[in-house]
Amino acid sequence: MASNFSRHFAERTKDMKASEVRELLKLLQVPGMISFAGGFPNPETFPTELIRKIADDILRKDGSQALQYGITEGYPPLREAVADRMNKKGMDVSKDNVLITSGSQQVIDLMGKMFIDPGDIVVISAPTYLTALTAFSAYQATFESIPMDQDNMRMDLFEDRVKKLARRGRQPKIVYVLPNFHNPAGVTMPEKSRKKLIDLASDFDLIVLEDDPYSELRYAGEHIPPIKSFDDEGRVVYMGTFSKILAPGLRTGWLVADPEILRKLVIAKQSADVCTNVLSQRIAHEYIIQGHIGPQIEKIKKIYGRKLEIMLKGLEEYAPSEIKWVKPQGGMFLWVTLPEKIDSSDLLAKALKKRVAFVTGKAFYADPRDGKNAMRLNFTYPSDDTITEGLKRLGSVMNEELVSRWDRSENGKLQDEIRKTLIGKP
Amino acid sequence: MASNFSRHFAERTKDMKASEVRELLKLLQVPGMISFAGGFPNPETFPTELIRKIADDILRKDGSQALQYGITEGYPPLREAVADRMNKKGMDVSKDNVLITSGSQQVIDLMGKMFIDPGDIVVISAPTYLTALTAFSAYQATFESIPMDQDNMRMDLFEDRVKKLARRGRQPKIVYVLPNFHNPAGVTMPEKSRKKLIDLASDFDLIVLEDDPYSELRYAGEHIPPIKSFDDEGRVVYMGTFSKILAPGLRTGWLVADPEILRKLVIAKQSADVCTNVLSQRIAHEYIIQGHIGPQIEKIKKIYGRKLEIMLKGLEEYAPSEIKWVKPQGGMFLWVTLPEKIDSSDLLAKALKKRVAFVTGKAFYADPRDGKNAMRLNFTYPSDDTITEGLKRLGSVMNEELVSRWDRSENGKLQDEIRKTLIGKP
Repeated sequence: MASNFSRHFAERTKDMKASEVRELLKLLQVPGMISFAGGFPNPETFPTELIRKIADDILRKDGSQALQYGITEGYPPLREAVADRMNKKGMDVSKDNVLITSGSQQVIDLMGKMFIDPGDIVVISAPTYLTALTAFSAYQATFESIPMDQDNMRMDLFEDRVKKLARRGRQPKIVYVLPNFHNPAGVTMPEKSRKKLIDLASDFDLIVLEDDPYSELRYAGEHIPPIKSFDDEGRVVYMGTFSKILAPGLRTGWLVADPEILRKLVIAKQSADVCTNVLSQRIAHEYIIQGHIGPQIEKIKKIYGRKLEIMLKGLEEYAPSEIKWVKPQGGMFLWVTLPEKIDSSDLLAKALKKRVAFVTGKAFYADPRDGKNAMRLNFTYPSDDTITEGLKRLGSVMNEELVSRWDRSENGKLQDEIRKTLIGKP
Repeated sequence: MASNFSRHFAERTKDMKASEVRELLKLLQVPGMISFAGGFPNPETFPTELIRKIADDILRKDGSQALQYGITEGYPPLREAVADRMNKKGMDVSKDNVLITSGSQQVIDLMGKMFIDPGDIVVISAPTYLTALTAFSAYQATFESIPMDQDNMRMDLFEDRVKKLARRGRQPKIVYVLPNFHNPAGVTMPEKSRKKLIDLASDFDLIVLEDDPYSELRYAGEHIPPIKSFDDEGRVVYMGTFSKILAPGLRTGWLVADPEILRKLVIAKQSADVCTNVLSQRIAHEYIIQGHIGPQIEKIKKIYGRKLEIMLKGLEEYAPSEIKWVKPQGGMFLWVTLPEKIDSSDLLAKALKKRVAFVTGKAFYADPRDGKNAMRLNFTYPSDDTITEGLKRLGSVMNEELVSRWDRSENGKLQDEIRKTLIGKP
């Protein structure tokens, strides 16, 4: 017989809830379901045969080391290879600035642990990556949500808000940003805004957490240097991952940080999981130094770029004209805005009956009243054909919803008219 | 130029420090160093060729799944296989009670996160596993240290202390125990104490965290059922690991818990690292269901049992008669007690000069004043020959230290005598 342990749970657990997306993923099991809900890479992109060969070779030649505990900071040659790649993106760092993590999700958790006291403010964009919300919530962060536009987080509003907070003695600790192909909003921050962000972070003494899982997945436009490359004061912690350019099952990511901050994060990681999976680190290292990563990224971009085009075409064809979206230059997601009167939760309930799934917009906001009329569509996981079929289903659900709303509201107006005419008052 | 970020770090970081053992591990690099310091399995025990074949097979047949994100709870067939193994140890659980984690260290971190508010009391044995201290410290736990004897944590003192705390309204949240071949103390809790612990946990409404990394590594005596097997109320969270019976580099462990508690821990894990390395979970699963784990454990026990005998023989031969130790029935460590006047930190400084390393006893206590005259020796990692050579070196350092202490104290007495005789006062 199970007891009730509510007395025992820590205060912080009250703010923690299972992610809506995670719960939704269970629906993928329903036969015939087409899912735009997850954030999964397409397994067609995994270099499985290459990974098999590399793993085989490592285990033949150096199994004792690859299967032993590793140092918390990460496998030194991998740290070096990552630092090299970061420098090609415009940074000026060495292996001592790199910590290898158990996926990039762990970076957010370690940052929360080392920086956030209950009530401390984390500035986020609205919307933002939802598991960043849950990770920071676990440390009882307070969120300051900054609206977005086609240029990602609005820097003018960011400045206003931070100034106001500072005046009230409520200086934020961290600003969390996804500058490239934002999840879920799809938009990219221009270089000018990145520099502005660094200047403001310096003025208000903020730590910037730059989450950059998708920068390699650019299908249009030019590379923009990471915020970290404009950072002279070591206040940006940059996070990257092998999940989207190698394979997520290997749970290998990294962060780039000032040595003082890195030292603290190493202590946190040590008590969190000792070290990152050593075999996976060795695989990631060989994958880079054998020169596979460049061609592999090209292959992924080709596949995802095509899927994005198919999704955009499908939306043009099947979505009602009231539906809006921004074409992303890269990444994995399309952010779709519905007319204000439409609640995407209602839409989802109907969509699921037609076996098509997405994530409702409100999952990505700290304030649950926001994002009601938005939705996130993933275009990397479904096959080309199912993207079109899924949008056809979704389009018909949208159309029905719009018509029935119209009917109800028009019908409402008519009844008001009749009432006014007959009884003389509303 | 690096800024100083001390303003930014969370309050909790003040209690966190890098583990002494971790820092010590750097000394392993010094040429000729013999280390009894770490807690590493011997790579000779890794079933490297088997892991290579299993990984090869998984990646050939089901690479897309093995390299994709997995569900947070863990790979269902592995959860099932673990539940089966647990039931053979005396539990009565199903896969729904099992959560696969990124090594068992993660279990302590998740438990801290979900249960510990700042100041909450965690009852520990003194000494205890040191990275449990750092993991709970990260959540600002207060420790209540219970002395140990040859039967592990002293249940009489445990009862007294918990009663006293309860009377003062300071009921502990968690009692953290290592019942089998305790790290570092080597001692095992008899069945009677395990039952007593469950009864007291029930009386005082405590959660028990049962850390059991070594139970398979028994070289003498009979298996004792885990505390979890006496738990009718779901208040024991049991944790196990593949690190000692497969390979630590795969970072795969598990916990067994009541579904209400498990649900909370899943939410915590989701924001900590999404899921455990999927390839490693698949390897662990095949390793179990192909029937390798039994023979492999026998092989490990033979190697470690032999190493323990070599260490015990070496101590008999080289350690001064004032040195005491308890012969463990299993595990990886030997806990050595020196005469009270000897500080093992002084001894370590001298030992390192002779190229032999160990961990000082005080690293394993919440109160830094404790454990000064103790040390932990690991016998699993060094080769057979180096165990003997290392103890020879250590014995000579111990002898020198004892003689010089004797000299100093005897010399001191003599001078006092002379002073008294000549001057007539002390």
